[in-house]
Amino acid sequence: MNPNRIQKIQTILTERKIDALLVSSSINIRYITGYSGFMSEERDAYIFVTKKYAILFTNTLYFDEVKKSVKDPIKVFLITQLQKTLEEFLKHEKITNIGFEENLTYSEYIRFKKLIGVKLKLAENIIEEIRTIKDQTELKSLHKACNLTDSALDYVLKKIRNGITELELAWEIEKFIREHGGELGFPSIIAFGKNSAIPHHKTDETKLKSSSIVLLDFGAKAGGYCADMTRTVFFGKAPEKFKRMYETVRIGQEKGFKPKMFTPQDLDKIPRDYIISQGYPNIPHSVGHGVGLAVHELPHISPGIKEKINPNTPFTIEPGIYINGFGGVRIEDTVYFDGEKINLLTQSPKNLIEL
Amino acid sequence: MNPNRIQKIQTILTERKIDALLVSSSINIRYITGYSGFMSEERDAYIFVTKKYAILFTNTLYFDEVKKSVKDPIKVFLITQLQKTLEEFLKHEKITNIGFEENLTYSEYIRFKKLIGVKLKLAENIIEEIRTIKDQTELKSLHKACNLTDSALDYVLKKIRNGITELELAWEIEKFIREHGGELGFPSIIAFGKNSAIPHHKTDETKLKSSSIVLLDFGAKAGGYCADMTRTVFFGKAPEKFKRMYETVRIGQEKGFKPKMFTPQDLDKIPRDYIISQGYPNIPHSVGHGVGLAVHELPHISPGIKEKINPNTPFTIEPGIYINGFGGVRIEDTVYFDGEKINLLTQSPKNLIEL
Repeated sequence: MNPNRIQKIQTILTERKIDALLVSSSINIRYITGYSGFMSEERDAYIFVTKKYAILFTNTLYFDEVKKSVKDPIKVFLITQLQKTLEEFLKHEKITNIGFEENLTYSEYIRFKKLIGVKLKLAENIIEEIRTIKDQTELKSLHKACNLTDSALDYVLKKIRNGITELELAWEIEKFIREHGGELGFPSIIAFGKNSAIPHHKTDETKLKSSSIVLLDFGAKAGGYCADMTRTVFFGKAPEKFKRMYETVRIGQEKGFKPKMFTPQDLDKIPRDYIISQGYPNIPHSVGHGVGLAVHELPHISPGIKEKINPNTPFTIEPGIYINGFGGVRIEDTVYFDGEKINLLTQSPKNLIEL
Repeated sequence: MNPNRIQKIQTILTERKIDALLVSSSINIRYITGYSGFMSEERDAYIFVTKKYAILFTNTLYFDEVKKSVKDPIKVFLITQLQKTLEEFLKHEKITNIGFEENLTYSEYIRFKKLIGVKLKLAENIIEEIRTIKDQTELKSLHKACNLTDSALDYVLKKIRNGITELELAWEIEKFIREHGGELGFPSIIAFGKNSAIPHHKTDETKLKSSSIVLLDFGAKAGGYCADMTRTVFFGKAPEKFKRMYETVRIGQEKGFKPKMFTPQDLDKIPRDYIISQGYPNIPHSVGHGVGLAVHELPHISPGIKEKINPNTPFTIEPGIYINGFGGVRIEDTVYFDGEKINLLTQSPKNLIEL
């Protein structure tokens, strides 16, 4: 739990003339409370952040545990008391409008509209924007996640052998991470041969044959924070076609570390333009994305975003070349901007590796 | 992919006077297409099921892979073509209203409302209700998941020892399941001692001490289908207080297999009433829930639902007693109704086990 985070929300609410914020995203609830027990797919809790309080409603399954672990200024109530409790707070604080998050469903909106007699309005990305700037504890967790990701790569490269399947290799990565105190940040993408031409290939039973591309996109999670890294290696002696693709992506990514301006637009544009200038197809995805409690979060590192990146904001730089029927190369690191330059968080080597 | 499933949706749409259904839930998209590569937390695809077609829109990251694996009657388009393509279909089929699912967010609703010039209305549980009745392939996967869950319990009971943590025990279960061809259906709940009094305890670093309750709630997933089972054992010689709780839950669950009527209401009521009649507190959750592609799905096994369960519908029966400061007992099986009686899918023994 972090009173500071609640204050930041309250400051933005005042700026945007919103009296209270209905928080429904389980990641945002975790960010505010520090409690990580709610299931991401179910609505186990809602928080209303008002000018003075943060009021959490949950069901009987969680009530006792949450009550124990969540402290002032967060007040915990049973969801069955929502209407009555909320009415009192709204009246007491003279609340006339409540902002809600982008993840709120239409039917939840209708339900709350009936339940609460004040105006509801969409209030996008309030907590998501606060989350982009990490404090020292968050950066420490991310460092840990990135170090573990590096160690896992080092370990798994030794496991690559003829006949191993993508899923088996993914499992070696997961076992290593789990047995070294981490979790998986997201389902690993392991792609052999032509599969590597599909940016989000679903890891499957494909067996490794000699003379194949091996693309590994994975990340450890530590203390809730997700690393994200991709390396592409060659199983066998790499042909010239692969070497040229690899070198182009590597240089493109390297250039991405030194944009003219530290804006998402420039960070995206430099590797993208370089790859196109070498005669390759445009990258079919953004060059990066923020990372944190979610593996994909703000900021978007994509064209058209001109606001400078904030200091202490971690994100990925991940250009790629994908050639249907042949394969793909992607090189991705988790990095962070310290206000002056971009620093690597994942540190695995990027020279061309032939196994 | 299963054309039969699309026809079932189309039949319900006709009954409910809905011209087309906007499918946004990733599990429902998997159910219709058979393609399991979309991430559950992100909106990687939408499907519009019209009277004649099923039209899938996805982004460039997935387009090629989906196009390869998804066949007629599903047509695959890029999400960037949504407005234009949809306009043609709507015009051609004279569609004047589109139903949307409960998971659609308010902001998606607004976006689609602007994009599509026809009426949008909430159409709850159309696919969720179809999903309750499983076909033979689905039941086969569920059988496999339940067998694997039984084997994992048998294996993990031997791993229970002084000083092991809840998380370590959870990892033993996961490793066993993954190395025997399955996945985890949901994060295992392992609760030692007093922690077992919290129905949804978040598995943590608590170390096992002698004379403790050990509650294990977990399930394997096979072919996408989730098993769900709970057993409660005693590490040491069980005191009378525990024995009596255990026996009450065991008998309550047993009675639940033979309700007067095969309705959720009766299935919930019988174990619940029995437990209360023995002087224990009311169960703070439903006695069960449907299982399938999701670990919690329809039907709800809870008070007030009077429609008879459909044949070939799997669900759980999981009464429990929870005593704050002492601990809890829950016994849960995945079962299915064959039209005449309830059959066990998970088969682990239910005699009191002292380790």
